[in-house]
Amino acid sequence: MLRPLLPRCARALRASAATPRLSYTLPTFSSQVTRRAYSIHPEAASTAQPVDVDPSKLVIQKTQDPKPLVDPSGLLFGRNFTGNLFPDPPPTKNPTEGWRAPTIQPYQNLSLDPATCVFHYGFECFEGMKAYKDKAGKVRLFRPDKNMERFNKSAARIALPTFSSPALIELISRFATLEERFIPDQRGYSLYLRPTMIGTQKTLGVTPPGSALLFVIASPVGPYYPTGFKAVSLEATDYAVRAWPGGVGDKKLGANYAPCVLPQLEAASRGFQQNLWLFGPEQYVTEVGTMNLFVAIKDKETGQKELVTAPLDGTILEGVTRDSILSLAREKLVPEGWLVSERKITMPELAEASAEGRLIEVFGAGTAAIVSPVRTISWKGQPVDCGLKEHEESGKIALRMKGWIEARQYGDEEHEWSYVC
Amino acid sequence: MLRPLLPRCARALRASAATPRLSYTLPTFSSQVTRRAYSIHPEAASTAQPVDVDPSKLVIQKTQDPKPLVDPSGLLFGRNFTGNLFPDPPPTKNPTEGWRAPTIQPYQNLSLDPATCVFHYGFECFEGMKAYKDKAGKVRLFRPDKNMERFNKSAARIALPTFSSPALIELISRFATLEERFIPDQRGYSLYLRPTMIGTQKTLGVTPPGSALLFVIASPVGPYYPTGFKAVSLEATDYAVRAWPGGVGDKKLGANYAPCVLPQLEAASRGFQQNLWLFGPEQYVTEVGTMNLFVAIKDKETGQKELVTAPLDGTILEGVTRDSILSLAREKLVPEGWLVSERKITMPELAEASAEGRLIEVFGAGTAAIVSPVRTISWKGQPVDCGLKEHEESGKIALRMKGWIEARQYGDEEHEWSYVC
Repeated sequence: MLRPLLPRCARALRASAATPRLSYTLPTFSSQVTRRAYSIHPEAASTAQPVDVDPSKLVIQKTQDPKPLVDPSGLLFGRNFTGNLFPDPPPTKNPTEGWRAPTIQPYQNLSLDPATCVFHYGFECFEGMKAYKDKAGKVRLFRPDKNMERFNKSAARIALPTFSSPALIELISRFATLEERFIPDQRGYSLYLRPTMIGTQKTLGVTPPGSALLFVIASPVGPYYPTGFKAVSLEATDYAVRAWPGGVGDKKLGANYAPCVLPQLEAASRGFQQNLWLFGPEQYVTEVGTMNLFVAIKDKETGQKELVTAPLDGTILEGVTRDSILSLAREKLVPEGWLVSERKITMPELAEASAEGRLIEVFGAGTAAIVSPVRTISWKGQPVDCGLKEHEESGKIALRMKGWIEARQYGDEEHEWSYVC
Repeated sequence: MLRPLLPRCARALRASAATPRLSYTLPTFSSQVTRRAYSIHPEAASTAQPVDVDPSKLVIQKTQDPKPLVDPSGLLFGRNFTGNLFPDPPPTKNPTEGWRAPTIQPYQNLSLDPATCVFHYGFECFEGMKAYKDKAGKVRLFRPDKNMERFNKSAARIALPTFSSPALIELISRFATLEERFIPDQRGYSLYLRPTMIGTQKTLGVTPPGSALLFVIASPVGPYYPTGFKAVSLEATDYAVRAWPGGVGDKKLGANYAPCVLPQLEAASRGFQQNLWLFGPEQYVTEVGTMNLFVAIKDKETGQKELVTAPLDGTILEGVTRDSILSLAREKLVPEGWLVSERKITMPELAEASAEGRLIEVFGAGTAAIVSPVRTISWKGQPVDCGLKEHEESGKIALRMKGWIEARQYGDEEHEWSYVC
């Protein structure tokens, strides 16, 4: 549709919604919740400053019908949800209001007009993060500032409103604390938290949503590998492309997920657990399924050991686990003589290293599994061996990374990455 | 996430959901409605054939509170909706059931669990089509088979179920007939119909949705240019990329729309009504905003007149209006000596033609406006004149195309493109 968009809309949008209004310094705080309806018309935003998220206004309406706990051994990812959440479905009427007071409410359906823009134009973004219980029974988040920073970037890219990062962390923290009985106090278990923002404008024009809803739901989850690592086999995908320069593949938008399912099913139909996204005629290795990818390799000439992951060039999701692994590698592997690189690496380079015995190990990295070791990659119908011995289910780096990260997630090691609720 | 996907899931999905189960021959039929919850688990689909859409099972529960009509002169695109729609929100339980019996219901909110996959992973696709009232008062659709064909392609690409195209056309036709009082009987007015399919599985794993909901809503709309054409000015966008070969830019998915809003706002902030998407270092001209683009040009050497639009290489939406214009051009312009081409055309080629006075006219093409004449394109900060004289708001081809297409839409000319409800 070619409806003209007024210049002042664009200016206003940039001034209000498209830029986070608070800087992302590491916050010093203590708890969490849901947000509610946002309502700010761009034309109003140019003159009035909309209200930001305000944890001091939190209203808690706890469920009167507490859900029973599921036996931790039976937990499946993202299938069981806790008793509460926090949206406030009706959008506000006052265009200058901004974010409404946050509320924690009993878990309940959202009631939305069928013309709501989230159903038609993909106005949706989300985050994946976890709350852990430490040995003292305290609830902890892991690097929530990184999630909030990315959440704001994702929202701004699709003209959804942004918010104060520390304020939302405080609300999420209070929410996780309220639901702490759902967090099993066993290693490997956690409460998966899903902050989600959707556009709620009820018109079919393709325009910046005049209202939005931010909600957080929580689902207790067990360890990704309950009986220890199990290395996966991947199929390299070159017939479909997940992301491209100038696109939105680096944002956590709903738009990036639905199109990934068919290539995954294609890989599965040939017996592979996941697909590996290649890009371009060079066949750059980018991501595996919905995780970042790390490759440990020895240099052909010098024998220098190098841990490589793709650079953030706009086609790679800015994974929090990716960032944590890079930090830990610089902290702990560089002193051991490793080179740590964010650089492009191609499938031919990887296959050559494999053939020459220089491919040390390969693993995926993401919030769900932390690390996911790779045994082989099928490329042009041929298996590329990723360095594991037959009896091994993980390489050494993946194993050590999991240990290092969990120590900080569960508070065994006090670290600024761990946020005590 | 790296959860393994079973090979049989993939096979089943291809067998059931990923392939339209009926061929797309031009249907011979007569009316329309909404569909309801689909529920088919891929693992079940391999053994049982799910039920297809069945118009003979249509249940009509008309609203008891008919909405007042809006004065046609006050109609805004996609803001007012008719009294009914047809979803059946609760997904079915029986995995082998397939599509449930279709129902027309009073217009109402959808009630969905906040974990529903449409809110998180962009499992949504839609169509845009219109119902017209002819001089005899009969309701007509325009090439609904083309919309259904594309709808099935879009659904299959994101692992949503497909359906019988003639059956859904019959249901949509009955729906449009039921709502016929909302269609003003004036030229340029119509009832915009929005068939939409969303994934409704309530889990956070990124997997093919085990259930889906198909609904259709309707909104009366006025002429795009109530007081005659008004040529627009475009800004060529090269810093953001709408679509990529191997991506999903040729499908009508929600995923393709939200990311388009910021570049549109950027263009608007500099005074342009829309942005023009360029692609690659060659600066191929692809689409304008959410419309296809046509260029009428004279050959530098021979003076041969040529009507050009970008080819369907996977980066271009397969527009129904685009297809209609190509057909009409071959039928009516070729005999006048025109060449009609689906080929790549670059911004430098266009700018050169403009500078040499060989650019005859440029126009967008889509369901909302039919054609939308372009006055200038701002490229690298310089205006490229698109051939209109100062007092003109449309070129001759755009004007004639609009007339030819409307004659078939409103039934002035009996043609197989017009489907009488």
